[in-house]
Amino acid sequence: MTTGQFASATLVDRQDETSWRSTIEPGWDIAGNANGGYLLAIAVRALLGATGRPDPVTVTAHFLNPGKPGPVEIDTEVIKEGRRFANASAVVRSDGRPLLSVLGTVGDLSEAGDDLLVDGAPPELPSPERCVFIEATDTFPPPFMGKVELFVHPDDMGFAGHIKSGIPRVTGWFRLPGDEPVDTVGLLCALDAFPPTIFNADLPVAWTPTVELTTHIRARPAPGWLRCRFTTRFITGGFLEEDGEVWDSTDRLVAQSRQLALVPRAHS
Amino acid sequence: MTTGQFASATLVDRQDETSWRSTIEPGWDIAGNANGGYLLAIAVRALLGATGRPDPVTVTAHFLNPGKPGPVEIDTEVIKEGRRFANASAVVRSDGRPLLSVLGTVGDLSEAGDDLLVDGAPPELPSPERCVFIEATDTFPPPFMGKVELFVHPDDMGFAGHIKSGIPRVTGWFRLPGDEPVDTVGLLCALDAFPPTIFNADLPVAWTPTVELTTHIRARPAPGWLRCRFTTRFITGGFLEEDGEVWDSTDRLVAQSRQLALVPRAHS
Repeated sequence: MTTGQFASATLVDRQDETSWRSTIEPGWDIAGNANGGYLLAIAVRALLGATGRPDPVTVTAHFLNPGKPGPVEIDTEVIKEGRRFANASAVVRSDGRPLLSVLGTVGDLSEAGDDLLVDGAPPELPSPERCVFIEATDTFPPPFMGKVELFVHPDDMGFAGHIKSGIPRVTGWFRLPGDEPVDTVGLLCALDAFPPTIFNADLPVAWTPTVELTTHIRARPAPGWLRCRFTTRFITGGFLEEDGEVWDSTDRLVAQSRQLALVPRAHS
Repeated sequence: MTTGQFASATLVDRQDETSWRSTIEPGWDIAGNANGGYLLAIAVRALLGATGRPDPVTVTAHFLNPGKPGPVEIDTEVIKEGRRFANASAVVRSDGRPLLSVLGTVGDLSEAGDDLLVDGAPPELPSPERCVFIEATDTFPPPFMGKVELFVHPDDMGFAGHIKSGIPRVTGWFRLPGDEPVDTVGLLCALDAFPPTIFNADLPVAWTPTVELTTHIRARPAPGWLRCRFTTRFITGGFLEEDGEVWDSTDRLVAQSRQLALVPRAHS
């Protein structure tokens, strides 16, 4: 495991075969509630511990209640131990209240296969200095933004006060502060760190609670900046999806995600 | 619940608070192994029974072992009972061997919200009579194709012997035989019924085992034909994703899916 602020804020302690403890650290929140990718990272550290595998391959989380700073308990169940992959589930609870449920396939991504088809490319971004750095505040931008370094494409920051693009898209650079390396668990944080795409849609800005987030990790990222793209095509039936891609400094796609979020009732 | 061949082949019997029994019916297989969407439908019937909710909203399955015809046991755990949604997990086992693990959020989709953004459209398809009907055989096309009615766009059937499009895409019409209505569980079957997109890529045709399938159900489908589109953009790192969309007869997007599959080792 890497060392650094993210690594230490996602540490888990094994209590027995299936029980773990961890702590939601203060400062990883959006308006008082812990960021979903951060919570997922805690759960996945427990899954990796329970299975003895180094990397998440595909992990799905369902978000059930907001997470507040303080101790959490994680129950893990190893469902299958295969040669190449293991499958396991986890539920993270605070005082017995479920915060998220997780199902994951984990394995070893140290030897990833070749790239046979790449119908896409990293987002084209101005250099980080020419992007908009999201600085943390006590309210908005939220405290969580102090735990990561996001530089968002100026065209995707219209929601912050100027003219919205009308395109539900957010692209930008991601890294962890202090040169902390981003491992495959850190990618889970990158996949849920950016402002919601819907902020740039031609709709009133409003928070969209995530119901579910599925992540696919394709490869361990090379050191350096990550470039991320999030897009939404369908805001229908009271729901919207947000598709994410993360590309590493060698121009390789290292992760994909899709989340399902709720359209605030006032708009649906 | 609707009645018909699909409905009866996905029936589940409650044994106690958390245990269910069902049967993998013969004929729902691909080369002897039950179709993944069919297995998922069985698991979801148990999730709906366990929670008393009518519709899957988002369900993820991880495929652990092939399913053969015969009895299966399903263990369910209700993780959260909310006002609008419930969250629950399930593991389907055959003789104690896990076939798939499932995590789902379920609810009532009878009153779906408005469509606020639709950046897409149903696939353009010739009429079903001018598409290629996939008839079942004992080998390939597999027996499963006798349980559904698929009419695939001729341009997406090049893999069957003529000239491959080189585009990893499959589009076509879906319905259940005998005018059986497709409910929201039937949509899960539609999302995993078509030939793999990779069959049309410029790669040797090979089976790609599914690791994980995530489905989002946006709305209950209107009666009539469903139009489906499956595409793949990235075959990298030994994995490929396949994204699915299902549109109903009123041109409404009713479901999305993404699956992660393994590239056969010989090609990776």
